[in-house]
Amino acid sequence: MTRKQLTEQIFSKKSYLCIGLDTDITKIPKHLQSHPDAIFEFNRQIIDATKDYCVSYKINTAFYEALGLKGWEAMEKTVNYIPATHFKIADAKRGDIGNTSAQYAKAFFETLNFDAITVAPYMGEDSIKPFLEHTDKWTILLGLTSNAGAKDFELQKSGDEYLYEKVLKTASGWGTTDNLMFVIGATQADEFTNIRKLTPGHFYLVPGVGTQGGSLKEISKKAMIDDCGILVNVSRAVIYASNGEDFADEASLIVQQYQEEMSLYL
Amino acid sequence: MTRKQLTEQIFSKKSYLCIGLDTDITKIPKHLQSHPDAIFEFNRQIIDATKDYCVSYKINTAFYEALGLKGWEAMEKTVNYIPATHFKIADAKRGDIGNTSAQYAKAFFETLNFDAITVAPYMGEDSIKPFLEHTDKWTILLGLTSNAGAKDFELQKSGDEYLYEKVLKTASGWGTTDNLMFVIGATQADEFTNIRKLTPGHFYLVPGVGTQGGSLKEISKKAMIDDCGILVNVSRAVIYASNGEDFADEASLIVQQYQEEMSLYL
Repeated sequence: MTRKQLTEQIFSKKSYLCIGLDTDITKIPKHLQSHPDAIFEFNRQIIDATKDYCVSYKINTAFYEALGLKGWEAMEKTVNYIPATHFKIADAKRGDIGNTSAQYAKAFFETLNFDAITVAPYMGEDSIKPFLEHTDKWTILLGLTSNAGAKDFELQKSGDEYLYEKVLKTASGWGTTDNLMFVIGATQADEFTNIRKLTPGHFYLVPGVGTQGGSLKEISKKAMIDDCGILVNVSRAVIYASNGEDFADEASLIVQQYQEEMSLYL
Repeated sequence: MTRKQLTEQIFSKKSYLCIGLDTDITKIPKHLQSHPDAIFEFNRQIIDATKDYCVSYKINTAFYEALGLKGWEAMEKTVNYIPATHFKIADAKRGDIGNTSAQYAKAFFETLNFDAITVAPYMGEDSIKPFLEHTDKWTILLGLTSNAGAKDFELQKSGDEYLYEKVLKTASGWGTTDNLMFVIGATQADEFTNIRKLTPGHFYLVPGVGTQGGSLKEISKKAMIDDCGILVNVSRAVIYASNGEDFADEASLIVQQYQEEMSLYL
């Protein structure tokens, strides 16, 4: 999916919402837990109920891998079920030496039909390039994450810059604003103005709104650019909005609230 | 597997060799490529031919994920086939926010029966802790990697220390010498003496010997401690020693050479 196609979706739906399918078999409603294809069935109902109000789905690979083969199968079915209009992100946080990263790129861009994958920067350029070589796909590099552990390394200073700033500056040169995005946590609102200065044209994938407590209003104000430039992800606050039989309806209501708020900022 | 059990294997076999099963369907011998279970069949023959001379196998998850469901199934069969005496490493380079890392730990320590997993440090302590909470398993954190990209961030200085040094010092406090190892690339021999000073009691997983060109002699001299403290991984130089029907025999010969050399250093 090109940037133009993505932003057309955003402006036609007045939404820059991404829904995170962190589907945990122990957290889905009881009436679905004994379903022979529980994870996919849950995802299918969530997608049907929310697709009109969001532009992207993010599959958190960990939750599928935890179930082994059955989980990998549910991931495959889910990515194939997501409408072609929606931007499909593998939240996989991969990254390894070049010949290995090339295999991960194959796994998520060819074997599975994702539009984008999240990757970790620690191992440097040759660990990221194999993803960027798929120029019709998107590589989403960890910049400044939403978790407490961001302070351990990402927010450590080297000279007068944080490690995450070095990562943004260095990695900007590896790809373009048409195939490289950054993960910036919504809980890091104080840094957003600075981050936008460092990377004025890149899209950000912003997790941390919802359960983690980031402010949609604040990050939208600080990070939005002419063609939007942000995808805000909500996972648990949407998919576990209810643990009863009404889970999909409740998810839809929450998603509509996000979409309405987003329409004000766009 | 405890440290004592691992080191008993090392001293009884006089080997600290780990074999990397980076099994690529396009690189295995032609006569196996049409086998209905080609990846597992290749791995099975490699394991049978090499198990007496090594103490560990490392499965590079990327190569299995690239094949989708079939690949995940081959990984499952392979890890179950590796003898219980051998230390089973998932080379997965995972790491995410806490509730997600907990799912990765479940995937590789419970659903699959690995003894260890490699993880990436960028996101900090809460991204690593869920792995370390499995106290009967091992977490192997990226320290200084073998690839060229190590210079981009790992070898960048913050004050008077490199990022990788900060990672080693900080992360040492998260686990113990009984459940935490570090990945240190063999191509970084200049740094090994310093690394051993920083982390005197930890085991290292050392890739980069073989195709990547690191010296077994040099890293053994600089990093070995009383109970060995290093696992040296070789992947491509072993498993692709021949691309004919004699691939397993040739792999066995190469592995015996490594074991003989290792017996001199132990």
